[in-house]
Amino acid sequence: MPEPRADAAKTVSNLRVNGTRLWSSLMVVAGIGPGPKGGSHRLTLSEDDKVARDLLVSWCEDLGCAIRIDSVGNVFARRAGTDGTLPPVLIGSHLDTQPHGGRFDGVLGVLGALEVLRSLNEQDIRTRHPVELVNWTNEEGSRFAPGLVGSGAYAGLYDDDTACASRDADGISFGDALKAIGYRGPTPAKHDAPPHAYFELHIEQGPLLEDQEVDVGVVTQVQGLRWFDVTFTGMEGHAGTIPMNQRRDAMMGAARLMERVYDIAVAHAPGAVATVGALTVQPGSRNVIPGSVNVAIDMRSPSADALAEMEVKLQTGATLIAAELNLGVEVRVPIRVAPVAFDVKLVNTVRRAAGQLGYRHRNIVSGALHDACHMAAIAPAAMIFSPCVKGISHNEAEDMRPEWATAGANVLYHAVLETAGVVAS
Amino acid sequence: MPEPRADAAKTVSNLRVNGTRLWSSLMVVAGIGPGPKGGSHRLTLSEDDKVARDLLVSWCEDLGCAIRIDSVGNVFARRAGTDGTLPPVLIGSHLDTQPHGGRFDGVLGVLGALEVLRSLNEQDIRTRHPVELVNWTNEEGSRFAPGLVGSGAYAGLYDDDTACASRDADGISFGDALKAIGYRGPTPAKHDAPPHAYFELHIEQGPLLEDQEVDVGVVTQVQGLRWFDVTFTGMEGHAGTIPMNQRRDAMMGAARLMERVYDIAVAHAPGAVATVGALTVQPGSRNVIPGSVNVAIDMRSPSADALAEMEVKLQTGATLIAAELNLGVEVRVPIRVAPVAFDVKLVNTVRRAAGQLGYRHRNIVSGALHDACHMAAIAPAAMIFSPCVKGISHNEAEDMRPEWATAGANVLYHAVLETAGVVAS
Repeated sequence: MPEPRADAAKTVSNLRVNGTRLWSSLMVVAGIGPGPKGGSHRLTLSEDDKVARDLLVSWCEDLGCAIRIDSVGNVFARRAGTDGTLPPVLIGSHLDTQPHGGRFDGVLGVLGALEVLRSLNEQDIRTRHPVELVNWTNEEGSRFAPGLVGSGAYAGLYDDDTACASRDADGISFGDALKAIGYRGPTPAKHDAPPHAYFELHIEQGPLLEDQEVDVGVVTQVQGLRWFDVTFTGMEGHAGTIPMNQRRDAMMGAARLMERVYDIAVAHAPGAVATVGALTVQPGSRNVIPGSVNVAIDMRSPSADALAEMEVKLQTGATLIAAELNLGVEVRVPIRVAPVAFDVKLVNTVRRAAGQLGYRHRNIVSGALHDACHMAAIAPAAMIFSPCVKGISHNEAEDMRPEWATAGANVLYHAVLETAGVVAS
Repeated sequence: MPEPRADAAKTVSNLRVNGTRLWSSLMVVAGIGPGPKGGSHRLTLSEDDKVARDLLVSWCEDLGCAIRIDSVGNVFARRAGTDGTLPPVLIGSHLDTQPHGGRFDGVLGVLGALEVLRSLNEQDIRTRHPVELVNWTNEEGSRFAPGLVGSGAYAGLYDDDTACASRDADGISFGDALKAIGYRGPTPAKHDAPPHAYFELHIEQGPLLEDQEVDVGVVTQVQGLRWFDVTFTGMEGHAGTIPMNQRRDAMMGAARLMERVYDIAVAHAPGAVATVGALTVQPGSRNVIPGSVNVAIDMRSPSADALAEMEVKLQTGATLIAAELNLGVEVRVPIRVAPVAFDVKLVNTVRRAAGQLGYRHRNIVSGALHDACHMAAIAPAAMIFSPCVKGISHNEAEDMRPEWATAGANVLYHAVLETAGVVAS
């Protein structure tokens, strides 16, 4: 029996996805939970998430795929391979969005994977390995903490009970929300056996590819990340009556710390970034000196050493500021994620596919975390980035050109064809 | 017919309030809407506010006072004078508290006034002017904006419809809340004729009197105040993907502005203070660069010139910071209150009473606004301050010694006796 790939390769190189169909699917899903400014508001496990999931499932059933829902709501749609004993090539991303999210973050990876399945069917391609689409539950983490929980549970990082116990701001548990939309499946989330490979197509969410007029980003690694909760504690008091030099104002600590946080990131730039996205002020009344303020910090760097150094600077800074201002301080680190390097062989596959398709491409480090980070811990994994307009993401104004989406999906298609192994007809 | 005061003065100087009874009333009211840390949580027009009001009304009715409720819920309890044609000496403060409020802020002034009425009755004193207790609605302004609305409406600053239209965070209107607790009275809030004089006893809410071991503060004036809402507008984006030098992070503007705000106050100290009590961050997610942040600022100074200068510095600073960080900025000034000087004659009355009673006393500038500020615009007004422990107020830990409360009430009593005119028996 001859090696199938060598024979098939000649015709395979001409295969392309249907970019118009992909774009049309993207626009249909964007209309589910539309945001007021043209983006999407499709929080995980919401009614709109259910509508989007149902549509995805029906599309995959139309292709003859076998659907499986696991106990944290991850949706799998498998297109059989010729060898029933082989693990699948897994491809996908997430359909949930931020509260003021865009139309492409996550969705491009799921519908890009759907377009690969559709193209395989339409072009009557048989693969040795099954090709399986996945829609991960709660990538964003904006309704339930933590994010990336579906892929994390699949990778064995969280057990199902832990994932289901998380509560949203209204006190609704993840488990109850899952049941309410009918997506608490019967099989455990943790994988039985890892996939053969994992590919995720995603928008860059940054400005680099567009700035350099590149069609496709070959993602070599993902930045590491640390989250910090720094809580300063002072003494509540009347805004008018305590002289400045007698105050123990927790907000003064927060302001000084924020300046420090930005300085730390700039000192480690380029590469490092830092964000203060939320502040919790007690009691939060204009004419009351804040007694307690929590500063929610996100710091990232592709270098593990830099991240460690940034954490030390933050911890030292917080202690110093508290001492200067006569405040109490507590620093918690809810998440430390090490930088992730993707599988060299799969990264080369992506780069080769982009080159053979004639796309301008470059290596890129992902600034954002992705489900692929959890997958990289259990299987060979890689990512493909498509440019997005002005790097805007997590924002309703998020946008991309249809030809960028097509290019990303074509690279995904060819990476899948090579990795799953095309069987000659 | 001889002048009555001269005859009565000899005995009047020996009159004292019942400090034990005053303290006991304070503790009873403190138990209505108790806070978890020993303070009070009695938001204006809440069910607990109603219970406290009902109790006050029943206590005043027990004294034979005529009760009047006006259309914004101000409660008046009048003890008749011997001359029915004369306007009353008005005394009081407010029973509502901050969300995490103390047991004495406002309450001391109302129950101190009640103790004056009780002592007048018990000691069988007749006065030429009526003596009238008042409980002003919504001094704190923490549930409905603005605060000081009851006295403001009485002084003619707000019409009743404006006062009643304000809505709380749950969308409930002031007018509906007023009706719900049964305190929307039939008479218009604006006074027909100003009172003869207005006295308000209040805790200092600052540390000066206790630090200097003084029993009574003679309040000569109230600081002016300006509120600012500074809103920076940038561009929302993913926390991991935008290099630091390409960000338009509204929180960076807020942090830098807050440091500026504190610097401005320190530059004008002693006397000036500045507080940032609340921040509104959009979208308020840790891993999203804030697209918009509103900084709620409270600045005060006893000097009108200093206040004006501070505003200029703030406006200039906000504009500069926005330019430095490539942000949009809008500065609104919802409130400008000029410093208030109290009536020299009444201030002298208070000082004389404190001296004749043998209390250690000193002049003091009020850092906080009070209903007395609105009253000073329409009638001779003055305030008496009692020390509070460590200057802590707007805080459940707010505390005072019973002898301080007694001293304050005795000074109030004697200021009332002198101003209302004691009629010899």
